[in-house]
Amino acid sequence: MQLKQIFVNGGRLKDTIEVFADFGRTENNGVTRLSLSEQDVKVRNYFAACCEELGMSVKADDMGTMYATLEGTEAGPPVVIGSHLDTVKKGGRFDGVLGVIAGLEVVRTLVDYGIKPRLPVTVMNFTNEEGARFEPSMMASGVLSGKFDKAEMLKKKDPEGTTFAEALEAGGYAGDAANRIKEATAYLELHIEQGPVLEKENLSIGLVDCVVGMACYEIEVTGESDHAGTTPMDMRKDALFAAADLITELRSKLGVLDSELVFTMGRMNVLPNIHTVIPNKVIFTVEARHKDMDIVRTVEEIINGLPEELLGCTIAKTRLWGRDTVWFDPEICALVEQAASRLGYSSKKMASGAGHDAQFVAGFLPSAMIFVPSVNGKSHCEEELTSYEECEQGVNVVLETVLSILAKQSME
Amino acid sequence: MQLKQIFVNGGRLKDTIEVFADFGRTENNGVTRLSLSEQDVKVRNYFAACCEELGMSVKADDMGTMYATLEGTEAGPPVVIGSHLDTVKKGGRFDGVLGVIAGLEVVRTLVDYGIKPRLPVTVMNFTNEEGARFEPSMMASGVLSGKFDKAEMLKKKDPEGTTFAEALEAGGYAGDAANRIKEATAYLELHIEQGPVLEKENLSIGLVDCVVGMACYEIEVTGESDHAGTTPMDMRKDALFAAADLITELRSKLGVLDSELVFTMGRMNVLPNIHTVIPNKVIFTVEARHKDMDIVRTVEEIINGLPEELLGCTIAKTRLWGRDTVWFDPEICALVEQAASRLGYSSKKMASGAGHDAQFVAGFLPSAMIFVPSVNGKSHCEEELTSYEECEQGVNVVLETVLSILAKQSME
Repeated sequence: MQLKQIFVNGGRLKDTIEVFADFGRTENNGVTRLSLSEQDVKVRNYFAACCEELGMSVKADDMGTMYATLEGTEAGPPVVIGSHLDTVKKGGRFDGVLGVIAGLEVVRTLVDYGIKPRLPVTVMNFTNEEGARFEPSMMASGVLSGKFDKAEMLKKKDPEGTTFAEALEAGGYAGDAANRIKEATAYLELHIEQGPVLEKENLSIGLVDCVVGMACYEIEVTGESDHAGTTPMDMRKDALFAAADLITELRSKLGVLDSELVFTMGRMNVLPNIHTVIPNKVIFTVEARHKDMDIVRTVEEIINGLPEELLGCTIAKTRLWGRDTVWFDPEICALVEQAASRLGYSSKKMASGAGHDAQFVAGFLPSAMIFVPSVNGKSHCEEELTSYEECEQGVNVVLETVLSILAKQSME
Repeated sequence: MQLKQIFVNGGRLKDTIEVFADFGRTENNGVTRLSLSEQDVKVRNYFAACCEELGMSVKADDMGTMYATLEGTEAGPPVVIGSHLDTVKKGGRFDGVLGVIAGLEVVRTLVDYGIKPRLPVTVMNFTNEEGARFEPSMMASGVLSGKFDKAEMLKKKDPEGTTFAEALEAGGYAGDAANRIKEATAYLELHIEQGPVLEKENLSIGLVDCVVGMACYEIEVTGESDHAGTTPMDMRKDALFAAADLITELRSKLGVLDSELVFTMGRMNVLPNIHTVIPNKVIFTVEARHKDMDIVRTVEEIINGLPEELLGCTIAKTRLWGRDTVWFDPEICALVEQAASRLGYSSKKMASGAGHDAQFVAGFLPSAMIFVPSVNGKSHCEEELTSYEECEQGVNVVLETVLSILAKQSME
């Protein structure tokens, strides 16, 4: 069965993006909407009101994650569209919120066209994806999937000392564990790429088949801090010289492993950090990501194979954390690919280098993600930008996928 | 004329070192005696009382620098022995104070032996050599020598907001500009080496012929901060990778210039310093010191010759400051060398890699410095250590030099 091609309302989508951005808009046209902050509670209430206006029922689970559901003509596992409304401090107008608005716009379009879906359609807003107010990130999806301990998460504090449990209660979003989603026909998350690939390759849609695995280490180099003017070079144990050599070694060994491997030394602290004193300690992180876990394991071997002593300094390596690659549901991925193809949008299969709620959800619901381009690859900043047209194309892919899932189900 | 060999009183010297260390002694046997702090004012008053007990007159100049003078049988430019009583926070028992105690012990020894010097002997305590409470270091000798502006220095504030002028007044050391020293027969400063050379080479005395010249630069590497997981390696502008390459280049080029050249990247800050974000900025210092200014100039050429762009990052170089090598008076240096030799102490000529009041004083008074070994080269820390025996040998060299100067003058 081939449905008549329908599209979302691009003008309305644009307006909705900007109306949502008003909740916490910064002076540089970004958004600050930390999880369960005043602005986040306001946007949640507004989102709920929009959904109720469409005849959807709205409820929250015990981690404050929201579910707005348009009933289907039959009972059954819902088709779910979700992401998160919270942002980092001075974040952008697109990261997270686009995936929630996509769900809202899909339902609005169904209502526009008088389409009564056979299965329920649920739009989800995950609490505290960013982890910018309460660490860790993806907190609610982590609890939902059983990766994080709920009691522990409820005790997490923001910098002011407010616990997550208190913030949930104060915002009116301490819901019921019985409302947690347990099954779904599909979970779809539309998100900005947060990287430069789609824009550089002039493509509209990223067909995300996995969230890459990663490993993160901390390297601690310990030398000796002596006077910079009085200590001959051959009597030094300069921790920065040793650290620079280690970075060079890591770059040369990791750089040849695979063109899709990314690795970063993002954090580095030099002690005592005084221009007249030879550094006695350098601590830096090295993290690497790849979808092929064999490559990630090779990276770990290389890191663990770094010398234990260099230039008179001792080298300690600590594995901070890691995660395995999460593969999305091949069937749902295929439906997304077909939808993009039917719509005539340029696309490519890609991995997500960043973490998303979908990676936890994929553990118990058949899931897939869709990316739209990020201008200059920027995210988590006020300059974050995806054109309205590209947002619209992304939401059309979600709509088309939802329709194909509903159609497919009705044929079975 | 050959004087009868006399020596200082080692037991008394040891006691004096420990009595002075009681003013601000820390629980780990170091000393915290910031300039013009309560402990510094107390040790100044104690030092003055010790000098007055020997019949010396004590006065202070307008920067609080103290002059304790034992009159000579004739008027004339004094023989001066000086250093500083202030320390850094959690400093040691020897840096600075040893040079002042040396002067006190020399006068005590003259008095012991009933020697009335032909010329006045003055013991000086320079205010705020360390710059640990009020920046810059060597503040009083800088003003005395005309290198620093007095009005500007008086306005310098400590972290609590107290000005240097207020601290001088509160401590009772706002003296008279008329008391500033204008001429001397010789200025001698005994100091711990603050480096490992004498200890490693098993020598007792460093015959310091200069304070090395230096140049200090700040290198600012600007790249772009992108998401560590989503940005392919070939689309990055990683400021830390570029900085590591620059450090490697500097090490290889500076490392071959001269074995006595020392260079250090002591301060380095990475921004935004988050393990999941590619660094967009790295700022680090590079300072180099050598007595041959031609080599220092070559270092500056190498630094300025670093690329302006690397791995997509821009490189900016700023000269923070520099100083020319200060050569001590050859005649005074020769007298010190002869004194050490007569005493049978092992010694070598060396440069001072650290800054000292003597480098400013040398601009208008014939000066020389004498080093004694620092255990493990440590200074400006609680572990700072020079054995009492080595301190005694250093003070004996001062005494012997003073005696030879007095004898030499009396022959002319």
